[in-house]
Amino acid sequence: MDEVTVRFSSGFSRDEVKNPVLIEGLPGIGHVGKLVAEHMIHELGAEKIAEIHSVWFPPQVIIGEGGVVRLANNELWFCGGERQFIFLVGDHQSTSGRGHYILADQYCTIARELGVTRLYTLGGFGVGHLVEEPRVLGAINHPSLLAEVEAAGAIVSREEPGGGIVGAAGLLLGLSAMYKIGGVCLMGETSGYLVDPKSAASLLRVLSTLIGVEVDPTRLEERGAEMEYAIQRLIEGERTTENEELRYIG
Amino acid sequence: MDEVTVRFSSGFSRDEVKNPVLIEGLPGIGHVGKLVAEHMIHELGAEKIAEIHSVWFPPQVIIGEGGVVRLANNELWFCGGERQFIFLVGDHQSTSGRGHYILADQYCTIARELGVTRLYTLGGFGVGHLVEEPRVLGAINHPSLLAEVEAAGAIVSREEPGGGIVGAAGLLLGLSAMYKIGGVCLMGETSGYLVDPKSAASLLRVLSTLIGVEVDPTRLEERGAEMEYAIQRLIEGERTTENEELRYIG
Amino acid sequence: MDEVTVRFSSGFSRDEVKNPVLIEGLPGIGHVGKLVAEHMIHELGAEKIAEIHSVWFPPQVIIGEGGVVRLANNELWFCGGERQFIFLVGDHQSTSGRGHYILADQYCTIARELGVTRLYTLGGFGVGHLVEEPRVLGAINHPSLLAEVEAAGAIVSREEPGGGIVGAAGLLLGLSAMYKIGGVCLMGETSGYLVDPKSAASLLRVLSTLIGVEVDPTRLEERGAEMEYAIQRLIEGERTTENEELRYIG
Amino acid sequence: MDEVTVRFSSGFSRDEVKNPVLIEGLPGIGHVGKLVAEHMIHELGAEKIAEIHSVWFPPQVIIGEGGVVRLANNELWFCGGERQFIFLVGDHQSTSGRGHYILADQYCTIARELGVTRLYTLGGFGVGHLVEEPRVLGAINHPSLLAEVEAAGAIVSREEPGGGIVGAAGLLLGLSAMYKIGGVCLMGETSGYLVDPKSAASLLRVLSTLIGVEVDPTRLEERGAEMEYAIQRLIEGERTTENEELRYIG
Repeated sequence: MDEVTVRFSSGFSRDEVKNPVLIEGLPGIGHVGKLVAEHMIHELGAEKIAEIHSVWFPPQVIIGEGGVVRLANNELWFCGGERQFIFLVGDHQSTSGRGHYILADQYCTIARELGVTRLYTLGGFGVGHLVEEPRVLGAINHPSLLAEVEAAGAIVSREEPGGGIVGAAGLLLGLSAMYKIGGVCLMGETSGYLVDPKSAASLLRVLSTLIGVEVDPTRLEERGAEMEYAIQRLIEGERTTENEELRYIG
Repeated sequence: MDEVTVRFSSGFSRDEVKNPVLIEGLPGIGHVGKLVAEHMIHELGAEKIAEIHSVWFPPQVIIGEGGVVRLANNELWFCGGERQFIFLVGDHQSTSGRGHYILADQYCTIARELGVTRLYTLGGFGVGHLVEEPRVLGAINHPSLLAEVEAAGAIVSREEPGGGIVGAAGLLLGLSAMYKIGGVCLMGETSGYLVDPKSAASLLRVLSTLIGVEVDPTRLEERGAEMEYAIQRLIEGERTTENEELRYIG
Repeated sequence: MDEVTVRFSSGFSRDEVKNPVLIEGLPGIGHVGKLVAEHMIHELGAEKIAEIHSVWFPPQVIIGEGGVVRLANNELWFCGGERQFIFLVGDHQSTSGRGHYILADQYCTIARELGVTRLYTLGGFGVGHLVEEPRVLGAINHPSLLAEVEAAGAIVSREEPGGGIVGAAGLLLGLSAMYKIGGVCLMGETSGYLVDPKSAASLLRVLSTLIGVEVDPTRLEERGAEMEYAIQRLIEGERTTENEELRYIG
Repeated sequence: MDEVTVRFSSGFSRDEVKNPVLIEGLPGIGHVGKLVAEHMIHELGAEKIAEIHSVWFPPQVIIGEGGVVRLANNELWFCGGERQFIFLVGDHQSTSGRGHYILADQYCTIARELGVTRLYTLGGFGVGHLVEEPRVLGAINHPSLLAEVEAAGAIVSREEPGGGIVGAAGLLLGLSAMYKIGGVCLMGETSGYLVDPKSAASLLRVLSTLIGVEVDPTRLEERGAEMEYAIQRLIEGERTTENEELRYIG
């Protein structure tokens, strides 16, 4: 069994693809990148063009509609037309450091074959507390990209995130430089404890500016507002409980 | 040394095999799958046809009759005749995620070579508490299998088990789809704390219906009743102790 | 770099080797096997004939005489003459399950190439408490070996050790059967907490009988007696301390 | 993707290299080796000649100047002239034992290709407490090196460090012997809790003598003095707090 298997859909022709932008949003901190990429797939009406399986994913199947299983995977989704996008999404990142390298290198190979001209990797940046106005951090794989990333509203600093960028979002950025593909990593500030659609909405605004395509953020913002409301009620519930306990004592 | 070695018995001829059904029952939660498969091997008089060794099994030998050791392995057992079955049983599953994939893929290759027409993978579904009437959950690798699995008494739902199916039972189901072999996973509800012949007996009833072959469940049911009796006595023993302690106090 | 590298000494000629017996004594529980093998190497005047390095050993060098380092390794020592022995000893066993298989298979390949006619693997059998008269357990890889192993004083039982035999002593025994080399595993009963020369002396008596060669156990017995004395003083020391504490209280 | 990738700078010509000495200073205990090697690179004005990437490094990018990332790597720096040095430095050592062997072997291959005549591996030797006058321990891969290492002020003993030398500093020393390259490991005594420029300065003095090149230790000594001062204030701060607590009680 090959370490990585890429199966393109029979209905997909590589001839359709012209200078696409690749956007990676695999699961990670706050699922920020995953939320953004899946939101864009939905809003832009992208179509699945490939399934990727690997011995470096967890040994697991996911149960879907009607009890039909599928192997844990990563997927490529394609959005054609004037401005083209390929989305890399999936259930899991690699389970090992070595697998991370092998998968990221495979993804760069695919990107080169499909003529990808720009790569965006999306992730979360955990700060350990709830964030009122999530910032979006940026990192790049070539100095020429700095101006446009900052102009789009991302904060670029060698101090944040302090420990570098770990996992697919980081490795794809680093390896793509060797494939001569310009890459940008955008990281939405997030607590790190919860799935964070609010941070995802912030990230989406920056990414929209960078790719020059308006993507309606309403659904992400609504989910963000719902979560804020739920968290607020949780906090108030705790306060009420504390007050009641005080009443018992007092 | 090869990662996986399959040694067929010299007495076994592949010409005997006609459209067999493959039943996997490796060790797992509550040993439900293992109990069912080994029970069927015994009841149907199957014969061992192959031993499988792998660097992905624990580095260990098992001591048998007269102190003679054998390497930890997986085995294939064959039951010929009108309706044919091959059983995949053994001491262990893989010790690593990567090994899980490599072994499951090897098993699918064997299944294709032997002309397997249908695959059943058997396992337990841990719920964390003792279960009075264990349900049997089902998952499938093709929508066309849904009706017969539900008709046989299995509950099919994308909500259960929530985290997907991990290990050999899941991977074999997912990978066999790529080998165009229809597959069904049956999972007996079980506490997850004990070897569970009662759950195995429930699972056997559903499986018997699916394969259209009556398998006497008496021995499994007896073992289940014995275990229930033993557990009951353990619980009563605890209650007695508690009562005695109360008497001391009171 | 190869996974395993075997370097035979330039002074060693395979033509010297005639039907040797291979004795494995790698580090393990109570270092029982290691003590016996190294004792025999010393008593029989064996000479080092090969060094084995592997990526599956810890990434480490050992500092020797005059500060000169050597890579962590396994070694083969040869004792020529009428009755020939090859000893497999070393600093470490493999750090991973997969490495255990790859190394054990390599050792069996060497054994076949050198015409080994019988394999003894030596180890300890941890029981969790100090043992007055350490028993020696035996396991075999062919039924024909049972009588002589029991006659030599080893206890052969499928109940002990309960969990099978893990690591090099077990795997070599299991794999050598596939190389058609008869193998015996001897395990000295030991607490599992301390290096145990007393258990090693017991094991040596059984092994001497099996190989038909008298090996003077004096040094092992002396080291065993010294350790017993040291342990005794430790225990008495504790009792004294307890008594003194009682005096303070009383 | 290859397990290890070595990319030499386009501006670098192997013809410049004549009998260089290789000095390894990768991250480790107290970062002693890393501090010395990076200090020498700075003081001697060495230039980067190669970047080394590997699946055995953590799956991570480091963010640098202007937010531009680079893959976690190891690097070779070259200092030409009469006496030539190559420095091996980097962000990380291997994440696994097997990776340690593969990388160290690769480094020895490079050393042989570049005609390296002597190898120094640098590290720290953790003793678990602050050290007033850090000693420098030495280990060698050939007996002929003992006299000069001791003459330079290193303490060579088979007792220290007791557990051998783990990681790159140890493996490079052990493996280089097989490549017929004389090697010396120098280890600066250090607490093991803090980055230790003072220990690095001690090590540098011994290394300077061995390579016969004066390297100005001022910057290392200054950093060492700053750290001592900071630690002293921390300790005094704690004492003050304790005294204040006593006053409250008293």
